[in-house]
Amino acid sequence: MTDENTVFVGRKPAMNYVLAVVTQFNSGSDEVVVKARGRAISRAVDVAEIVRNRFVPEAEVADIRIATEPVEEEGRTTNISSIEISLKKP
Amino acid sequence: MTDENTVFVGRKPAMNYVLAVVTQFNSGSDEVVVKARGRAISRAVDVAEIVRNRFVPEAEVADIRIATEPVEEEGRTTNISSIEISLKKP
Repeated sequence: MTDENTVFVGRKPAMNYVLAVVTQFNSGSDEVVVKARGRAISRAVDVAEIVRNRFVPEAEVADIRIATEPVEEEGRTTNISSIEISLKKP
Repeated sequence: MTDENTVFVGRKPAMNYVLAVVTQFNSGSDEVVVKARGRAISRAVDVAEIVRNRFVPEAEVADIRIATEPVEEEGRTTNISSIEISLKKP
């Protein structure tokens, strides 16, 4: 699993990231990992669901992992939640 | 799995739902499912992570499911993403 197969979801519209995932699959990847932190987690779930329901119906959710990551913010460390959704073509 | 063991995460602060999950575990439940839809999905991940990291360290993420649910809104049907995080004590 390299970073090439990873799509980091941020603040842009979900369809931007959907396009990135679909492009990965169409270029021959069997697995694409959708990652996000904080409020973008909801959008990452949207991205995974839109990819599966509309563009790559054979893709399956192989694994979902959640974690907590420390983030430096204005001199102090706070924690932020993260998610990794692994989509795989059989 | 009954609704008794389910905590629906909405727009309140995460700690309200953390308290609900911890109370379920302390009252003898072995499994608590944290559910959310739309933007509350990020908060549901926060809730699961705070419960595990601060209050119920023995709880494990047994399963995470994502789905798409149709929602009636102003006379038309739109889709909304949902998440279910199952926390289990061994």
